[in-house]
Amino acid sequence: MHSLNTSKIVTAVFDDIQRLENNGQLASYIPELANVDLDKFGVYISRLDGKEFGIGDFAEKFSIQSISKVFVLTLAYGILGGKMWDRVGVEPSGNPFNSLVQLERDNGIPRNPFLNGGAMVVCDIILSQFKNAKEELLSYIRKVTENDGVVYSPRIVASEKSIGYRNIALCNFIKSFDNIENAPDDVLDLYFNMCSIEMSCKELAKGFLYLANNGTTVSSKEKILTLSQSKRVNAILQTCGFYDESGEFAYKVGLPGKSGVGGGIIAINPNKYTVAVWSPLLNPKGNSYKGMKFLESFTTETSSSIF
Amino acid sequence: MHSLNTSKIVTAVFDDIQRLENNGQLASYIPELANVDLDKFGVYISRLDGKEFGIGDFAEKFSIQSISKVFVLTLAYGILGGKMWDRVGVEPSGNPFNSLVQLERDNGIPRNPFLNGGAMVVCDIILSQFKNAKEELLSYIRKVTENDGVVYSPRIVASEKSIGYRNIALCNFIKSFDNIENAPDDVLDLYFNMCSIEMSCKELAKGFLYLANNGTTVSSKEKILTLSQSKRVNAILQTCGFYDESGEFAYKVGLPGKSGVGGGIIAINPNKYTVAVWSPLLNPKGNSYKGMKFLESFTTETSSSIF
Amino acid sequence: MHSLNTSKIVTAVFDDIQRLENNGQLASYIPELANVDLDKFGVYISRLDGKEFGIGDFAEKFSIQSISKVFVLTLAYGILGGKMWDRVGVEPSGNPFNSLVQLERDNGIPRNPFLNGGAMVVCDIILSQFKNAKEELLSYIRKVTENDGVVYSPRIVASEKSIGYRNIALCNFIKSFDNIENAPDDVLDLYFNMCSIEMSCKELAKGFLYLANNGTTVSSKEKILTLSQSKRVNAILQTCGFYDESGEFAYKVGLPGKSGVGGGIIAINPNKYTVAVWSPLLNPKGNSYKGMKFLESFTTETSSSIF
Amino acid sequence: MHSLNTSKIVTAVFDDIQRLENNGQLASYIPELANVDLDKFGVYISRLDGKEFGIGDFAEKFSIQSISKVFVLTLAYGILGGKMWDRVGVEPSGNPFNSLVQLERDNGIPRNPFLNGGAMVVCDIILSQFKNAKEELLSYIRKVTENDGVVYSPRIVASEKSIGYRNIALCNFIKSFDNIENAPDDVLDLYFNMCSIEMSCKELAKGFLYLANNGTTVSSKEKILTLSQSKRVNAILQTCGFYDESGEFAYKVGLPGKSGVGGGIIAINPNKYTVAVWSPLLNPKGNSYKGMKFLESFTTETSSSIF
Repeated sequence: MHSLNTSKIVTAVFDDIQRLENNGQLASYIPELANVDLDKFGVYISRLDGKEFGIGDFAEKFSIQSISKVFVLTLAYGILGGKMWDRVGVEPSGNPFNSLVQLERDNGIPRNPFLNGGAMVVCDIILSQFKNAKEELLSYIRKVTENDGVVYSPRIVASEKSIGYRNIALCNFIKSFDNIENAPDDVLDLYFNMCSIEMSCKELAKGFLYLANNGTTVSSKEKILTLSQSKRVNAILQTCGFYDESGEFAYKVGLPGKSGVGGGIIAINPNKYTVAVWSPLLNPKGNSYKGMKFLESFTTETSSSIF
Repeated sequence: MHSLNTSKIVTAVFDDIQRLENNGQLASYIPELANVDLDKFGVYISRLDGKEFGIGDFAEKFSIQSISKVFVLTLAYGILGGKMWDRVGVEPSGNPFNSLVQLERDNGIPRNPFLNGGAMVVCDIILSQFKNAKEELLSYIRKVTENDGVVYSPRIVASEKSIGYRNIALCNFIKSFDNIENAPDDVLDLYFNMCSIEMSCKELAKGFLYLANNGTTVSSKEKILTLSQSKRVNAILQTCGFYDESGEFAYKVGLPGKSGVGGGIIAINPNKYTVAVWSPLLNPKGNSYKGMKFLESFTTETSSSIF
Repeated sequence: MHSLNTSKIVTAVFDDIQRLENNGQLASYIPELANVDLDKFGVYISRLDGKEFGIGDFAEKFSIQSISKVFVLTLAYGILGGKMWDRVGVEPSGNPFNSLVQLERDNGIPRNPFLNGGAMVVCDIILSQFKNAKEELLSYIRKVTENDGVVYSPRIVASEKSIGYRNIALCNFIKSFDNIENAPDDVLDLYFNMCSIEMSCKELAKGFLYLANNGTTVSSKEKILTLSQSKRVNAILQTCGFYDESGEFAYKVGLPGKSGVGGGIIAINPNKYTVAVWSPLLNPKGNSYKGMKFLESFTTETSSSIF
Repeated sequence: MHSLNTSKIVTAVFDDIQRLENNGQLASYIPELANVDLDKFGVYISRLDGKEFGIGDFAEKFSIQSISKVFVLTLAYGILGGKMWDRVGVEPSGNPFNSLVQLERDNGIPRNPFLNGGAMVVCDIILSQFKNAKEELLSYIRKVTENDGVVYSPRIVASEKSIGYRNIALCNFIKSFDNIENAPDDVLDLYFNMCSIEMSCKELAKGFLYLANNGTTVSSKEKILTLSQSKRVNAILQTCGFYDESGEFAYKVGLPGKSGVGGGIIAINPNKYTVAVWSPLLNPKGNSYKGMKFLESFTTETSSSIF
């Protein structure tokens, strides 16, 4: 995939998808997300060779939501290593992101760190590691993304807390199985802050280069994860990054990635590039409708699925 | 990965795993499988550049069992294309290979073609396509593996039929949801024959090169699947090939692959190589204990996970 | 409840329900049941003091289906006593009559003898007790109902076998857990014959008097069950007789009873009377739409719920 | 059952059970309940004809826990009538008392009012009816039990709140389905207070006479429920009063009843008597080990099962 081709193909696919009727739905359950312009559509690709290209609303910040679960995972994994898998699994769940059914069967061990419950356990791990976990997490994210502009959005935090019954249920449920060490309210506060982060496609694409680069940031050359750890995080992204649509995403797109209910998706082609897409309306599984379509066409056109 | 390195690394890892205590269990539920020598251990690697290397019992045939589900899948997919996903999904199940729970919730649509029920639906598709499905399947397998020595084992078929209550239940259950077109007994006959195929590690490694080679056989250059189809089959292998241990396999090994209850595993590194392992004792998820250990060490040592 | 009142109240309630729009559906999955006249409606009440009264199509035979599960239960229970509960439970299931989900969780022990799977285990018990189980069961039913006119319907047996995939699945599933001793085909043959019995409301009401009479037949004074056993069978009928509508039936009608997919219901008021109703169209839970309505009004008008 | 016989039989059965080895376990999850004397054992029977009899620790107050769910149910049912079943079912669940699985499948409608979640919905109904729901509930309980000595135990409330993660999860989970109107914290406060009530066997037996007396209190002749409502509450107690042991209780004891995790059980023989038992150690289903044994022997000896 030459850099010339990249921008041509991205542009062509972008235009195709732009014309598609958008059959997605708004994730109306977080009130604040309903205020976004539903026609937004942006793409940014960032290559390890330094080439990059954006189109559409790639420079506009949006709520990255669950995409930030990847950051808390790599923070915890970098500290604890494989020991953390005693408390959360690496298996796809075959169930929606906020299901409690499997937790009951599995005695409070979430199937993977990208389910809401799994991310709460990871937040709990981080809370137990740091005195000021919220600040530490933010500076970690700034470091790995090489971007000091990343901030929490108190507005989004407040909005999520106002309707967060399902998440409160999840966190207390896991606590009832003794797989949360801290007070549920503290875990939920970190969790909601984590979800509130706002970034643009450009910031996302550049911010996830460390996972395309075997665990090392591109400019500052800081080793965030070992080679093996970086590959393993990508593997979990591949099998679990899209809830009960992970198989479909692997099948159609063929890249490790993570979606957020704000309509963003980040995908990683190890040793090659990252690509971020944003379009707010979601398919029935909770993943960006146009984002999925774009990535499917893009990796098909460029034959750049990892399979 | 140079060819010199390949054989050195394979040998070193093989010796390490050979020394490990084998904590696996025999898959005692198929009586005939209990007659195998439990100490068997073989590995064969076959590279697209023509280099190959084997060690241990790599030339001995064994019952490949569920590994042959990949062959029936590519046969059906090559004929029907994406239309076949109306009848079977591409999502990991998060449940054991013979679970009926999800089928009840999903109205008889198996989550993926590597679950027993999923493979039965694929067998049903093939039965409806051919007059002599059993013969057609065998000649297809001989063609894609470029190996005329592949045969069914009537001994294994008889053994499985004698205790096949769970599979009879699965097939009739799916039929009750109208997702089986033919008589359950005919579907089960094809299914049990498919499972009975015996191949060696060497035959497996060479026989699956078409999936490392973007859908085309290596010697005869026959196009079995399109580039896109081949990638998509590998993606399904990655997310669903190891039942409820698929996430773990992606995490530890990082290659698409498929296991069988006879203790065999095939793994595919697209555009590079295939590797087959065989050791009969199984871990609690039904995958070869030593086979998993070998592949984890091997891809770690060679940094050849696709992630 | 005086006998004069009985016939007046039965008549009044019958007329009310007769006028109701029938929102039920035909149990179309057994082809032969579709040939019945959907407007049929009959009621028969039989009191222990010898008074009896019928109205509507009370003298016409129909397929009693699952109602005959009560006969096989009392036959097995009379022989084995409490030992039989090692193989089948006495708990309501909270699930439809043909669900396989709980069986998987409970290792093949059906929750109660009125689920299809539970009745199969009871049939298996009977098969292991007798050389000619089919004949023995029929003469037992003739004895307890004091009615030599009871016969199997080969027409219904053939019809059920032609579409019995779900039941074949259930029986083989339980066999796979080793909770069926005989060959599944033999168990299913007895099971389908049991379901095929045809009786009229009058025959049903009189035939179940032994359960209103503490286990002893009314005319021949034959002790079928002990006092305690008879009460316990009624208790199981109360909690489990109407699948996942058992609570609703207890709540609205307040009598132990059993329904069949042919549209029949038998209800028992211990030490007082039995009442049989028949109307072929079923509510969404598989119980007679008008039958349920009739019994609710009847026990409310006569204040004869046992609670 | 003559009154002379009653006391003789109660005494004989009590002595038998007293001698039994107690294989029950303490419900250790509510810390405060662990402080009770585990050898306590009391029985009280109260007949509609005015005769009553107690033995053992019948006069000692204990935490009645879930038994008080019956009071909140009759309060709500008396006000709303059948309309309340839009928000909670009357079906046995086939699952433990604090399971979340069915709630997820049933969109937040608890199967019955005696599951924890069901009782929370009933508490929510009461909260929406009254300004001072906690006080109103207490005076209602005092009225129906004809006993001004009934009080909440702040000690038990505090103890339950300190470890109530599972219940917090349940309440917020139901709220997430919009089947809780008030703030979860308020619902839980009423719920925990309700559970904290302490009464003796004597107070319980006398306090539940209204349900044996067709809805009317015995001394003050106050009509709490209509005849039909009273029968229907007893029917729900029969099918749902003992969680996933309700079928077993109907089978062995044959009376409507309700257990609490404090080791108490109340059982009702409509038009005849009530009987209360207390023994703190519980069987695996969470019901009093000796209490179940006593009631089984008692109704068998007196042939007073309602079936």
